[in-house]
Amino acid sequence: MRFELTKEFLEEFRQAIVDQNNSWIIEHIHELHFADIADLLDQLTNDEARYVYFQLTEDQQADVLMELDEDVRDRFLASLSTKEIADQLENLDSDDAADILGELSDDKIQEVISQMDDDEAAEDIVELLNYDEDTAGGLMQKEFIQVRVDWPVNRCLVELRRQAENVENVYTIYVVDDINKLVGILSLKRLLFADTKTLIRDLFQSKNIISVKTSDASEKVAQVMDKYDLVTVPVVDLQNKLVGRITIDDVVDIIKEEADKDFQMASGISEKIEENASVWRAMRARLPWLLIGMFGGVLGAQVISGFSVGISKVPLLASFIPLITAMGGNVGVQSSAIVVQSLAKGNIQFSNIFQKLAREGLVGLLNGSFLAIIIYGIATFILGNSTLGFVVSISLFVTIFFAAIFGTLIPLVLAKYKIDPALATGPFVTTLNDVLGLFIYFTVGMLLYHI
Amino acid sequence: MRFELTKEFLEEFRQAIVDQNNSWIIEHIHELHFADIADLLDQLTNDEARYVYFQLTEDQQADVLMELDEDVRDRFLASLSTKEIADQLENLDSDDAADILGELSDDKIQEVISQMDDDEAAEDIVELLNYDEDTAGGLMQKEFIQVRVDWPVNRCLVELRRQAENVENVYTIYVVDDINKLVGILSLKRLLFADTKTLIRDLFQSKNIISVKTSDASEKVAQVMDKYDLVTVPVVDLQNKLVGRITIDDVVDIIKEEADKDFQMASGISEKIEENASVWRAMRARLPWLLIGMFGGVLGAQVISGFSVGISKVPLLASFIPLITAMGGNVGVQSSAIVVQSLAKGNIQFSNIFQKLAREGLVGLLNGSFLAIIIYGIATFILGNSTLGFVVSISLFVTIFFAAIFGTLIPLVLAKYKIDPALATGPFVTTLNDVLGLFIYFTVGMLLYHI
Repeated sequence: MRFELTKEFLEEFRQAIVDQNNSWIIEHIHELHFADIADLLDQLTNDEARYVYFQLTEDQQADVLMELDEDVRDRFLASLSTKEIADQLENLDSDDAADILGELSDDKIQEVISQMDDDEAAEDIVELLNYDEDTAGGLMQKEFIQVRVDWPVNRCLVELRRQAENVENVYTIYVVDDINKLVGILSLKRLLFADTKTLIRDLFQSKNIISVKTSDASEKVAQVMDKYDLVTVPVVDLQNKLVGRITIDDVVDIIKEEADKDFQMASGISEKIEENASVWRAMRARLPWLLIGMFGGVLGAQVISGFSVGISKVPLLASFIPLITAMGGNVGVQSSAIVVQSLAKGNIQFSNIFQKLAREGLVGLLNGSFLAIIIYGIATFILGNSTLGFVVSISLFVTIFFAAIFGTLIPLVLAKYKIDPALATGPFVTTLNDVLGLFIYFTVGMLLYHI
Repeated sequence: MRFELTKEFLEEFRQAIVDQNNSWIIEHIHELHFADIADLLDQLTNDEARYVYFQLTEDQQADVLMELDEDVRDRFLASLSTKEIADQLENLDSDDAADILGELSDDKIQEVISQMDDDEAAEDIVELLNYDEDTAGGLMQKEFIQVRVDWPVNRCLVELRRQAENVENVYTIYVVDDINKLVGILSLKRLLFADTKTLIRDLFQSKNIISVKTSDASEKVAQVMDKYDLVTVPVVDLQNKLVGRITIDDVVDIIKEEADKDFQMASGISEKIEENASVWRAMRARLPWLLIGMFGGVLGAQVISGFSVGISKVPLLASFIPLITAMGGNVGVQSSAIVVQSLAKGNIQFSNIFQKLAREGLVGLLNGSFLAIIIYGIATFILGNSTLGFVVSISLFVTIFFAAIFGTLIPLVLAKYKIDPALATGPFVTTLNDVLGLFIYFTVGMLLYHI
C-alpha cells in the first residue's frame, strides 16, 4: 500500500519527461501521495522537476512544495519568477508561505507580496513574517476555525462551512468572545451531535484550556504540546486574543531538530548541519571543536613535558597516557550526557544539584574501583610490572572520580548561566578531564617511582 | 493560563490531605489539567497520591494514570488489588490498558482480566497483549471509528454517535468493505457537510491511503507518520483488514526515545536509562563502554611500549600523545555522528557509500591540513622545536584523514549487517582511532628523529 521509489520507475519517469508524455506522467503521478511525489522530484534535475511540478494540480503543488528537500526547494524557487512564487504562496498554508518567504531577501519579499492576488492571504503572511521564527508566532498558521461563544450551533455550522474551506485539518474549533479573546474550545464531535438551536455557550469546554503566547519559544511550545498531549494548540497575543494555531507536525519537526542538535553538539559539531551540506559548511561546523580539542592537546603536552625527566627515566610511564585520557574523557561524557538529557526534558531542579553530584560521584567511585582493580591485574600479571600497575590503577581511580564530578557539574553550571548545556558534552569536558587526568597520573607516577 | 506547581501549593495540598479536607482538594483539583494533576501526584507519597486519586472522577483517573511518572505509576499500581486494577483498566484506552497489564506477571494478568466487567474491553486488551510492544500492533488502540462503504451518511451518523462515545479524539473515520477490509478514509469535516442520503462510496477518499501492518516495527510507524504528516494511521492485518489505529502522541514518544537512545549510545551509555535509575543500573549501563575504552587503552599502551627506546631518547615525543589520540577520536566521532543521523532518518542509499566516503575524506583532508599547519606553528615558534612540530603535524594530518574515513565506514558497515550503527559513535571509533593514531605518530617520529 506504500510506494517504493525504484530505479526502474525513475528511469521510466525521466524518459516520459524527455518524451513530454504528459498523459503518462499525470496518470502515474495521480496515484502517488504528495510525500512520494516530493521524493521523486528530489531525485530529478531542476528542469525535470519544474516540468513535472507544473503538471500537478494546485493542491498537489502546495503539498509537494512543502515536502521537498530544503536544498531542492530553494533551487526550485530560485528558478521561479516573483509572480510565479506569489502564485505558489497562495496555495500554501500561511505558516508555510511565511517560512518560504522568510528565506528571500527583503526586496524580493516585497515584490512577491505585491504580486499576490489574494489580499487576505498576503496580510496573514506579512503578519507572520513579523515573528521570530523560533517562537510560537513564527510557528503558527492563520488557518483555524473560530466561533463566537454567543452563537447557536446552526450559525456555527454555516461559519464552519465557510471557514473550513481554507483549513486543511479541523481538529478543534476555538471559541472566542465578542472582542476575540480565547475563552474555550469545542470538538467537532461535540458540535456534530448537538441540537442546532443550542448556544455554543452551553456546549463548549472552558476549563483547562491550554494555549501558548506568540512570544513563547518553540521548545516551550513543543514541551507544552507534548505534556498535554495536544494535536493543535491555540496561540494568543498579550491580550489573550486568538491569533493563530500550531499543529503537531510542525512540533514533531522541532522535537527532532532539538534532538539532532544535542546529538551533534555531543559529537563536536557546532552548527546544525544537513548531511548533504557543502564541504565548506561541513568543515566550518567541525573546526571549532577540533581547535578546542587541539588547544587541550597542547595544554596536555605542556603538562607532560613538565614530567619529561621522569619519562626519560621510566619511559614505560608514557604507555598509559592514552588509557588515562581516554577513560577520563569517556566517564566525563557519560555523566554530562545524562545531565544534558534531563535538562532537555526540563526535569532538573537546581535545588537538588548536590544530590545529583553525590550520585554521579558514587557511580564514579564504584566504576573507578572496579576498573582500577582490573587494570592493576592486567599490568601486574600480564605485563608483569606491579609498580606501574599500582600507578595506573590509583590514578585511574582518581581521574574517573573527578571526571564524573566535572561531567555532572559543567553542564549544570552552563544551564544555570543560560548557556546551552549540550556544549559541555563535546570536547570541553573531554579536554578538561584529559589535562586533569595527566596531571594526576604523572604526579602519582613520580611519587611511587620516587623520581 | 498554564499551571505552575509551586512549593507553597504542594504544602497546602499536603495539609489538606492530612486534614482530609476533601472539598478543598476536589475544588482545587477540578481546576487542573490532568497532566498537571499527574505532576502533583508525582510529588506526593504513595499513600497521599492514592488518597487524592480516588477523589478524582473516573475520566480524570484514566487520564491522570497514564501521565504519571513510570516509577510512580508502578508503585501506585502495586498498591492496588487486582479488582481495583481491573476497574481502572476499564476507563483506559485499550492500548494504555494493555501497556499497563504488560508490566504485570502472567498470573496477575489473568486475574485482572477475569475481574473486568466489560467483556468487550477485556477482549480488546487480550488481543493487544499478543503483539510485540515494539510493533504497530503493540502501539495501536482498538478505539477508532469505522463505517461501511455502502452506508448512507445518516446511517453513518448514527453509528458515529454510538462509536464515538469510546473514542476520545475523532480525527479520521475509516471506511471498510463488507469483510472489514480497509478501503479508504473520510474526514469528519467532509461528513459534516454531506447530504444525509449520500452514500459513503461517493464521499470517501480511496486514493493514497497510508496504513501500517501490525508487524511493522514502531520506528517504521514513526517514519511513515512523519513522512506523510499523519495524526493517526490505521493498522491492518495481513489480509488488509482494519484492526486498530495509532495516534501521533504515542509516536512522538517513540521519536523522543529513539533520539535519546542514539544520544546515550554516542555518549557511551549502553542501556536506555532514566535519570533517576538506581546507582547499580547506572553503573551497569556505563561499564561496557568503559571496559572497551580500557581495553583500547591497554592496546595503546602496547603500541607505545614498542617505541619505548625512542621515547627514552626523545622524551618530548610523549608530550603529544594526548593531542594525537584526542584529535583522532574527535574527528572519528564527528564523522560517525553525521552518518548515524542520516541512517536514523533513513536517507542513506548504500549505492552512494563511496561518494560519502570521498566527501568525509575530503573534509578530513581539509581540516587535517588546516590543523597541521597551526600545530606546526605552535610547536616551532612557541615551543621552539621544529622537528617535533614536523612530526606532530604530519602524523596529525594522517591521523585525521584516517579517522574521518573510519568514522564514516564503521557505522555504515554496522548498518549493512543490521547492527545498530549508533554503537559506532561511542568508544568504538575512538579506540580504533587512538591505536591507529599512536602507531602513525610514533612511526613518523622514529623516522624523522632517525631512531
